[in-house]
Amino acid sequence: MTSLTAIPAYAAPAPKAPLERTTIARRTVGAHDILIEIKFAGICHSDIHQAREGWGKGIFPMVPGHEIAGVVTETGSAVTRYAVGDRVGVGCFVDSCRECEYCEQGLEQYCVQGTVATYNGREKNGEPTYGGYSTHLVVDEKYALRIPEGIALDEAAPLLCAGITTYSPLRHWNAGPGKRVAVVGLGGLGHMAVKLAAAMGAEVTVLSQSLRKKDDGLRLGATHYHATSDEATFKELRGSFDLIICTVGAPLPLDSYLSLLRVDGAFVNVGAPEEPNSLNMFSLIAGRKTLAGSSIGGIPETQEMLDFCTEHHLGADIEVIRADQINEAYERVLASDVRYRFVIDTATI
Amino acid sequence: MTSLTAIPAYAAPAPKAPLERTTIARRTVGAHDILIEIKFAGICHSDIHQAREGWGKGIFPMVPGHEIAGVVTETGSAVTRYAVGDRVGVGCFVDSCRECEYCEQGLEQYCVQGTVATYNGREKNGEPTYGGYSTHLVVDEKYALRIPEGIALDEAAPLLCAGITTYSPLRHWNAGPGKRVAVVGLGGLGHMAVKLAAAMGAEVTVLSQSLRKKDDGLRLGATHYHATSDEATFKELRGSFDLIICTVGAPLPLDSYLSLLRVDGAFVNVGAPEEPNSLNMFSLIAGRKTLAGSSIGGIPETQEMLDFCTEHHLGADIEVIRADQINEAYERVLASDVRYRFVIDTATI
Repeated sequence: MTSLTAIPAYAAPAPKAPLERTTIARRTVGAHDILIEIKFAGICHSDIHQAREGWGKGIFPMVPGHEIAGVVTETGSAVTRYAVGDRVGVGCFVDSCRECEYCEQGLEQYCVQGTVATYNGREKNGEPTYGGYSTHLVVDEKYALRIPEGIALDEAAPLLCAGITTYSPLRHWNAGPGKRVAVVGLGGLGHMAVKLAAAMGAEVTVLSQSLRKKDDGLRLGATHYHATSDEATFKELRGSFDLIICTVGAPLPLDSYLSLLRVDGAFVNVGAPEEPNSLNMFSLIAGRKTLAGSSIGGIPETQEMLDFCTEHHLGADIEVIRADQINEAYERVLASDVRYRFVIDTATI
Repeated sequence: MTSLTAIPAYAAPAPKAPLERTTIARRTVGAHDILIEIKFAGICHSDIHQAREGWGKGIFPMVPGHEIAGVVTETGSAVTRYAVGDRVGVGCFVDSCRECEYCEQGLEQYCVQGTVATYNGREKNGEPTYGGYSTHLVVDEKYALRIPEGIALDEAAPLLCAGITTYSPLRHWNAGPGKRVAVVGLGGLGHMAVKLAAAMGAEVTVLSQSLRKKDDGLRLGATHYHATSDEATFKELRGSFDLIICTVGAPLPLDSYLSLLRVDGAFVNVGAPEEPNSLNMFSLIAGRKTLAGSSIGGIPETQEMLDFCTEHHLGADIEVIRADQINEAYERVLASDVRYRFVIDTATI
């Protein structure tokens, strides 16, 4: 049996401090819990935001990681969904109130009480949560996902955040055949948005600062690729898109982007800028346009996304790293120098 | 026959100048045109914006008025929809390209070429358009609406802008039984939004700066009435509304208002502030919320709205004025001193 009191992990000991190897304790496997041997954990830009307190005060030491793929190694007495050996994933949250109308609809991400975040959060008993940059995790089976055979665990890990964060708004705003979808930013989220929207049958355009990643964009499934640093882009594409998924985490000139929408089009933000945006209401009124946001997805939709990705042979484009490369990887994420997701091989922790 | 070369009207001779009596020429009644003897014209806040160039350069002399109700007094040779004596209305536009996908869908308000505005616009031949502060109007029958018997012409006039501007988003965002709808601002648009939303079966809340008009709000159909100057309002109503229709023409603290929405709720702006707003994207992401705009309505939906109002015995609450009171009325509109729409009796021009 795994000792749950000294689980190897990588943690930031304090805000903005480099991550270093440590050990953490996980809770005893309860009746409804499964113990997961983590195989891979993706590095999400939000890991960096939180470890550096860009979004507000954090809980330290902090073990980031909410793109988790592994294998079940133990099950609690009341577990019904999973068996030892099953391939499973864990995303951005590990619990929620389970009672509110949103939890009841499988929209746990919008739980009225707030979800229990996979890391940098607190369990209902007040204990801090620790994420996927570690070798084992104990989680209630209701908050785990099944990773189907046919998709590699390393390529599956980033789907638990980057995948569902883009899949959910694409579905909600009806990406599909006959729809023109633009993806702003070709990073971890953006590259999944392109793959998913194309697999759904939409005509996909990438809007990126430069044409530097154009070949990648077309390979991933886009039909068109434009540089937003070129003012002609905004003239040429005026009134073009049914849906724009914005994955950029910095404030953008919203009025210019809204001018690219068709009547009744939607601009959906999944990137999370720290600074407020400026917006002219006329940009929305003229054309009954929607500016919206979307946050990850609920458990049922996350499972649907994993099944969809398996069916369409879609994983993330990844670069697998050793745990001792995490700090370097953070710098490369900040420099947009990753195609398109770092995934930690947790065997190296 | 009416002389179309010297139609009495009230016009602003120059930007910010008081309106004064003058005469204007209307075009000859063409094969598809109807001649309308205008009976009443509403005063919309946007008349003031335009006459004073708050929204940009205007065409002068300017005869405002796009809330027009009257009677057909002459029909062109090819007219099929209307006969002399019919009660008709004209709203914010009198023509559009008639060919684009939006015109074909009856969404003429979003015409790709832009509509021909009822005033302060130009016909396709370049001639300036003049609005409803006059005794007669010539318009293509396709851009006229039928005002059913059972609704008084003076109470019907404001429906052509204030009515349809609020009806359209209430319908588009599914106001109805089981839905909680808030109306921000109880002015010309707001009072119609309350009446319409209540008639659609929604539970209506008014959010107004103060409680000064509370009795009116409840009489018009609201169940709840809160002052936005009271900070407790925002705490108490957090996460309450499916839909917020904002009729206020000044920038608001959007993030505070968005916090009042339920998950998947929509805040729809129909007021048109001249200044940009500030917005934190997290206000939309946490709860998959929508910020949208809506502009008047198309011809089919405007007819639907007039029929709906007749069926539900809804007209605007009005104060009928003489033409020589227009300038004074403008000042009172700016001071929010009207319950709830001034309507000019055009017989006094």
